[in-house]
Amino acid sequence: MEPWSLGVDIGGTKVALACVNAKGRILAKMKYPTRPQQSKEAIFEILIQSLKDLCAQMEGSPVSVGVGIAGQIIEKTGLLTVAPNLPSLNNFPIQQKLQEALKLPTFVLNDVKAATWGEWWHGAGKGHRDFVSLFIGTGIGGAIVSGGQMLTGQNNCAGEIGHMIIQMNGPGCTCGNRGCLEALASGWAIARQAHAAIQRAPEEGEAILKLAAGETVTAQHVVEAARKGDPLAMDLVDKAIQAIVTGSIGLVHVLNPARLIIGGGLGAALPGLLERVSEEVSRSALPAARESFGVVGAYLGEEAGVIGAADFALTHWQGRGDDVAQVGP
Amino acid sequence: MEPWSLGVDIGGTKVALACVNAKGRILAKMKYPTRPQQSKEAIFEILIQSLKDLCAQMEGSPVSVGVGIAGQIIEKTGLLTVAPNLPSLNNFPIQQKLQEALKLPTFVLNDVKAATWGEWWHGAGKGHRDFVSLFIGTGIGGAIVSGGQMLTGQNNCAGEIGHMIIQMNGPGCTCGNRGCLEALASGWAIARQAHAAIQRAPEEGEAILKLAAGETVTAQHVVEAARKGDPLAMDLVDKAIQAIVTGSIGLVHVLNPARLIIGGGLGAALPGLLERVSEEVSRSALPAARESFGVVGAYLGEEAGVIGAADFALTHWQGRGDDVAQVGP
Repeated sequence: MEPWSLGVDIGGTKVALACVNAKGRILAKMKYPTRPQQSKEAIFEILIQSLKDLCAQMEGSPVSVGVGIAGQIIEKTGLLTVAPNLPSLNNFPIQQKLQEALKLPTFVLNDVKAATWGEWWHGAGKGHRDFVSLFIGTGIGGAIVSGGQMLTGQNNCAGEIGHMIIQMNGPGCTCGNRGCLEALASGWAIARQAHAAIQRAPEEGEAILKLAAGETVTAQHVVEAARKGDPLAMDLVDKAIQAIVTGSIGLVHVLNPARLIIGGGLGAALPGLLERVSEEVSRSALPAARESFGVVGAYLGEEAGVIGAADFALTHWQGRGDDVAQVGP
Repeated sequence: MEPWSLGVDIGGTKVALACVNAKGRILAKMKYPTRPQQSKEAIFEILIQSLKDLCAQMEGSPVSVGVGIAGQIIEKTGLLTVAPNLPSLNNFPIQQKLQEALKLPTFVLNDVKAATWGEWWHGAGKGHRDFVSLFIGTGIGGAIVSGGQMLTGQNNCAGEIGHMIIQMNGPGCTCGNRGCLEALASGWAIARQAHAAIQRAPEEGEAILKLAAGETVTAQHVVEAARKGDPLAMDLVDKAIQAIVTGSIGLVHVLNPARLIIGGGLGAALPGLLERVSEEVSRSALPAARESFGVVGAYLGEEAGVIGAADFALTHWQGRGDDVAQVGP
């Protein structure tokens, strides 16, 4: 049997597990809800047990384990220093613990990098040595592949594209700065702008409020109302898209990627997003930078994380590392 | 005798040539004014003759030639497609022509990348695998070293940091976009803001106008007036520095560099620039990104270009490439 790896994607609402082969195909999978209130021991025990249950469905054993998780990870040791969705895992040596429990080489990386790795080798980034991914959901994350390497930066936290400032003195961001891309175009930012607009002129917010049906207004309600032609919602969506266009032009100038891969729930839902970014970058970016540039949607959807984590682990188990890109995927 | 290379830095006002050894030491040098009106044949002939004259001062022969020039260069062939300062060299196969004339391996790269290479191996970037350079003069250019590679992007034009948009719908830029870092903090941008402010309130511009002594007001006049405590000039300088701070925070988030190297005439002249950028990034950037981050001035000044071009050529002649950084410089 050809080698396969375990992929783990620990998200804010669910933990996804999968057995993935070298072609990026999922051979078996399962998921269960994330329980942030649990102790690190309980979280870890359920994870180990679930991985063992999943492996029991397979013939043979995995060669390695890859884990994608939101937060800050020390690259060399796989120590999880900050886990915003699961604070009980702060400073948890997740790589070492998994390695001890499963007796398998284990690799831990940021969830957005895992999803980007998946898109690189088995999705929208296939065959490219230079691209940027942008995942737009509640927040905005991203990763950079340049010259056939996924950039880590000095502390393994390169790719915080949501916190590139595109509007000096703009609206406040969760990071404490003003005018970050995330503060203008993420799910929480769109919801915030909707609330403010509705407070200013409640009559203009009728369509959005009706869709929210008494619940708190979210970006999804705004997107839905925009699709139905509601003027306020269309305006809010337009502003978010314009912010993404602005950030994209900056990224194209700084990094000169061949592709911008846009994913995430809102990345897929914002009406006309890919076309607008593509058109405006093609029209406005510096000629040399925009040449052969393209915008594509992420292919792998929710499975990018497990596929990417597993493939990262398989690739590094084989000792290939990033530079395999030089011979093409 | 140890191997040495020829470095050429073709700038908008002068062409600098130097013989440089592997330690980055200049063994001999010369310069002459750039003459943009000349034909490509004349420009090339003077360059070849000057290089031969310079070599005549040395014992032995160079092992390779490196050329830094502003413009767009095809990485593999060294074809200069666009040379904004010397339009007669547009589409000139400079690498091939030099190679034929001098019978030496020749390497051509963008002038900012050459200066960054010089700072990397023999200046402010020494020992680092992750840094960003920012050269602030009439315009703003930069380059990125990440994971021990100088990033080229897909078309060899990564590093157009001056055209990262930091103020959506901000002042117009030469590139056609609005709110680029260059449109807020470069020499031409500061001069433009000074002209506008003086037009609005001529009495507030007295100190600057006095320094300009009847000539057109430049950023240098503004900087000089600011150093003398003139309120308008101080305000203009403050706004430029704030734009550089904003861009720097974005770069730190996107690329997670260990160092930001600031160079260029204005980079060295803007009062308090390095301290302000350092303080504000340390206070405002994401904690993981700002850890161990530092801001430093470029060391090599005007010689960064020739040293970098020569060292690039020497390194590539030796077949080492970027990744020598892995073993430390």
